[in-house]
Amino acid sequence: VRISELSRASGVPLPTLKFYLREGLLPAGSRTAPNQADYDDRHLHRLRLIRALTDVGRLPLASVREVVRAVEDERTPLHELLGIAQYALDPTVPTRESSPDEAGARAEVDAFIDQLGWRVSADAPARHALATALLTLRRMGWDVGPEVFERHAEAADRLAAAEVASLDEGASRAESVQASVVGTVVFEAALVALRRLAQEHHSALRYARD
Amino acid sequence: VRISELSRASGVPLPTLKFYLREGLLPAGSRTAPNQADYDDRHLHRLRLIRALTDVGRLPLASVREVVRAVEDERTPLHELLGIAQYALDPTVPTRESSPDEAGARAEVDAFIDQLGWRVSADAPARHALATALLTLRRMGWDVGPEVFERHAEAADRLAAAEVASLDEGASRAESVQASVVGTVVFEAALVALRRLAQEHHSALRYARD
Repeated sequence: VRISELSRASGVPLPTLKFYLREGLLPAGSRTAPNQADYDDRHLHRLRLIRALTDVGRLPLASVREVVRAVEDERTPLHELLGIAQYALDPTVPTRESSPDEAGARAEVDAFIDQLGWRVSADAPARHALATALLTLRRMGWDVGPEVFERHAEAADRLAAAEVASLDEGASRAESVQASVVGTVVFEAALVALRRLAQEHHSALRYARD
Repeated sequence: VRISELSRASGVPLPTLKFYLREGLLPAGSRTAPNQADYDDRHLHRLRLIRALTDVGRLPLASVREVVRAVEDERTPLHELLGIAQYALDPTVPTRESSPDEAGARAEVDAFIDQLGWRVSADAPARHALATALLTLRRMGWDVGPEVFERHAEAADRLAAAEVASLDEGASRAESVQASVVGTVVFEAALVALRRLAQEHHSALRYARD
């Protein structure tokens, strides 16, 4: 199809499409005439991926480029590719040296994940986020270890297993990354919202008078 | 104790303490001499609450003041008080009129929560967040209803029940609010981090070669 039709089909405005082409995020169409090119389903899938990364994942353009490059490079195994997209969603881990408290919390979190038997890279940013959560509890006067998150780990394990199982076997690399990124961002937001609603419900059961 | 000792015990710098006193967030100590006042455990608890709301909940000062006022006003029932603190943590719901798509998603989410049998106020901000999550999935081409969040609702229900049950029966109003706010912010962050770690684990089980 022509670029104007690609714009209609994808809902992406024409100037934005041209920007993606210039930036190399969207591969050029096959030339059909000096001033005309043809676009197909691969372009549509790529656009869905880009929108998922920018609009849903809120990734900066540099990270989008990195993920798109990994999608294109068939030597990047799918598991690694999903990891690149996943890690790009996480806020950057501070590079300054950690305090003894921080290093201690991190070591406890690492041991906790080992105990769970999870296969997770040593530099997964979420390890750092979990250590920060533990430290915050301690600073607020809660004398607890990572076991305080045991129920949350069980719930996370069940949910992630179901989400990964639901990924389509025949999906392309771009589709798999898109599903993984949208799933992460949207299901996280939904999970947080549902936890708050459930908390109000259980608080009402315990405290409300009527 | 004197204000300098209150500063040491709480870890809050003296100028910040004086700021809280001026702003009425911290009640004045009982005067023991023209230029000296005495502070007690209630002041320490209040400071922990303020730090939880500002440092952990990242609430603006106006919201902190609102929560503190509700803690002080004994006519505000505890359930309502926890609701005030909880809703303050949520981003403000846009007041512009919603599109037909948005209104439709919101109605579906409301029906879904009814089906769950949850006692949740009609203006809980998390209802809006859940409708936004549903809309995002649809915009990304997933043809789904709120049932797609069923597993997440079950997990949220279990986690919230355990968290509310763990609140101390004999806690003061300030302590209950502090525990609820810290719990919400920290356990949400932990849950999100654990979901990402679990996703990497299950992705490794399914896709990694070794």
